[in-house]
Amino acid sequence: MCEANAYLITGEEPELFMEAVDVIEPEKDGLKLVSIFGEQKFIRGQIHSLSLIDHKIYLQETSDD
Amino acid sequence: MCEANAYLITGEEPELFMEAVDVIEPEKDGLKLVSIFGEQKFIRGQIHSLSLIDHKIYLQETSDD
Repeated sequence: MCEANAYLITGEEPELFMEAVDVIEPEKDGLKLVSIFGEQKFIRGQIHSLSLIDHKIYLQETSDD
Repeated sequence: MCEANAYLITGEEPELFMEAVDVIEPEKDGLKLVSIFGEQKFIRGQIHSLSLIDHKIYLQETSDD
């Protein structure tokens, strides 16, 4: 299976945000993540980078500037 | 292997931009894509959405507004 874990880039170590992500879609001012189990999570942010062979997605929260 | 094909969202059907993508990283005002074969491509755009079980990444070019 080719799902990936989504990590949130914070000031320090990337923090696990959601496991086994299948789909990420834009929604309003952020992203909707859907796992292979059908769970959904929303983040006000964007995709920073991908490393698919490592099963990693990096997300970045939208700043309030 | 968990690479995916990157498609560019255009007005009509999504258009294949790069096959077998492993890594996508931000670079200057766009993205650098690296395939599992080590090929690199640059696009002035962003990641629109992902569908990893389908091995699909959708990209959107940055508009010149």
